[in-house]
Amino acid sequence: MAEGPVSPTPLLKDELDIVIPTIRNLDFLEMWRPFFQPYHLIIVQDGDPSKIIKVPEGFDYELYNRNDINRILGPKASCISFKDSACRCFGYMVSKKKYIYTIDDDCFVAKDPSGKDINALQQHIKNLLCPATPFFFNTLYDPYREGADFVRGYPFSLREGIPTAVSHGLWLNIPDYDAPTQLVKPLERNTRYVDAVMSIPKGTLFPMCGMNLAFNRELIGPAMYFGLMGDGQPIGRYDDMWAGWCTKVICDHLGLGVKTGLPYIWHSKASNPFVNLKKEYKGIYWQEELIPFFQSVSIPKECITVQKCYIELSKQVMAKLGKVDEYFIKLADAMVTWIEAWDELNPSQELPNGPTK
Amino acid sequence: MAEGPVSPTPLLKDELDIVIPTIRNLDFLEMWRPFFQPYHLIIVQDGDPSKIIKVPEGFDYELYNRNDINRILGPKASCISFKDSACRCFGYMVSKKKYIYTIDDDCFVAKDPSGKDINALQQHIKNLLCPATPFFFNTLYDPYREGADFVRGYPFSLREGIPTAVSHGLWLNIPDYDAPTQLVKPLERNTRYVDAVMSIPKGTLFPMCGMNLAFNRELIGPAMYFGLMGDGQPIGRYDDMWAGWCTKVICDHLGLGVKTGLPYIWHSKASNPFVNLKKEYKGIYWQEELIPFFQSVSIPKECITVQKCYIELSKQVMAKLGKVDEYFIKLADAMVTWIEAWDELNPSQELPNGPTK
Repeated sequence: MAEGPVSPTPLLKDELDIVIPTIRNLDFLEMWRPFFQPYHLIIVQDGDPSKIIKVPEGFDYELYNRNDINRILGPKASCISFKDSACRCFGYMVSKKKYIYTIDDDCFVAKDPSGKDINALQQHIKNLLCPATPFFFNTLYDPYREGADFVRGYPFSLREGIPTAVSHGLWLNIPDYDAPTQLVKPLERNTRYVDAVMSIPKGTLFPMCGMNLAFNRELIGPAMYFGLMGDGQPIGRYDDMWAGWCTKVICDHLGLGVKTGLPYIWHSKASNPFVNLKKEYKGIYWQEELIPFFQSVSIPKECITVQKCYIELSKQVMAKLGKVDEYFIKLADAMVTWIEAWDELNPSQELPNGPTK
Repeated sequence: MAEGPVSPTPLLKDELDIVIPTIRNLDFLEMWRPFFQPYHLIIVQDGDPSKIIKVPEGFDYELYNRNDINRILGPKASCISFKDSACRCFGYMVSKKKYIYTIDDDCFVAKDPSGKDINALQQHIKNLLCPATPFFFNTLYDPYREGADFVRGYPFSLREGIPTAVSHGLWLNIPDYDAPTQLVKPLERNTRYVDAVMSIPKGTLFPMCGMNLAFNRELIGPAMYFGLMGDGQPIGRYDDMWAGWCTKVICDHLGLGVKTGLPYIWHSKASNPFVNLKKEYKGIYWQEELIPFFQSVSIPKECITVQKCYIELSKQVMAKLGKVDEYFIKLADAMVTWIEAWDELNPSQELPNGPTK
């Protein structure tokens, strides 16, 4: 696992885009230069399109502001959030690569316990290229990692694993807490480096944070919709959660794996808990209905592509969550628009993944 | 979390028994003296009862050999394995304490990354006294640990957790591999200290190893039956696995939590892979039928005690696994005998835990 910060041949150099939503100059990229410079960046400008975003020299990038999104998607641009980092999912849609890594602009390079800079992207790529094992828990965590394996009692028929669709990385320093927890524990910092990657078991939901996230766009891209947040919407800070719940139930249905754990990034600054509380408060009570909904979602066997699964999910959101609040009716419509826009920009992408038994 | 090796008031001193199955003198206890001496030991002698087992001075213990087991249980002694460490479960039955810690006699004190001796028992007690959260995955692992919490997107209604019934600890040095993996990787050693404790999600099975295991005997004791292994049986090394699968489905039904992760012990010596292969080979293919069986077990709502759940499980084992091999018919009978013997020795123990919704 020990490699220098500059790998001589960066993995998946031509198969991965780094998507960054931002409202400011991207000085944070300086610190990531040794790891990110070989890759192509897709920058999605969140907010005022007249503002100029500066990107440090030497990076290969394309940048989209709201005017670009409107021009490219036309009326379908309504499904992309405005003034919210949820707009990042536009970058997933315009990418033509197989893999996506997305990171927030307040995330820096973390150090492992030996003091070495962590190449987060490299670890995500390892996670994505290596199978997942969501059907049975391995007590020594990732069984494919060097120095580890499947333990006694692990069924041999499950040891080949299944393809990994999502790699969810973690954060040192500022933990990803909700506003109430931020308010109660303003000084809490995450200092614990847990040296593990694991598959999230089938049937188990998790809170997917968009700060440090990679996925296989070919396998799961159309499910990575970050919903309607920010300007004009009654809710914020649930964009990644929404994407995570939708993605997990679709991965479970299609036989795809989701991993969490390494790599860590250094999350530099806590967002304002009072502002967050305003964004979150509807989510905090809606979530009590959303979790049972997602826990009981059943996708019909006939849905063998991510798109078909997602459209089916949008129907169930409309039928069941529409009663919770009219916001979910709007969201269900936007889910359909998102898929239409995705298919327009990715005409040949609808490949069957094959459902699980 | 940082405490000296000798805690001034040992936790649960009068509420926990340490159960050790052995065939040799218990010199390994010398190393555990600072941590174990305040507690009562139950030693179950596995094999020839005429052999004298020496216990280092200063430990408070009771010792049972096969003659004692036969005398105490009469004909019901047939449910206790002979010449196999599975006999340890007799110790769970004769204990009168609320908590059990069981450890193998080839397990020594491990060191944490800072070089400090790990008080495994103390960590197990922490795990057991603290709630479990099996209904939703927390990406920062144990949310109750100092410096951690529930992350954004974790439903508030689930943050109180549920009682923890089982704490499964891990092993540094010799990993708990099956014979085929031992043969393929004879030199592999576990050197990775993963600083985490987590709840195993509801509905997910895991391979429970009996080497370093603690549980709440009042909550789950009657499910901790280690089956029929060793002398006269067609299988070995599946005693703890069997107990783990039964325990997990019953915990899931009754709303009890199972944790895995810290603490580590130092597992000193790999057992002989050729001998292990002979013990395991039937288990290795039976396991392919056992896992789907346990994954689909459904326990009726009316079963509100561990005993009732276990008797129900024995019926399903008889009906469904009896077809796989006649061994499971014998095992199903032994499961019933085990519960009868348990209730005889623990007459007032059958308290309802209350089922989950």
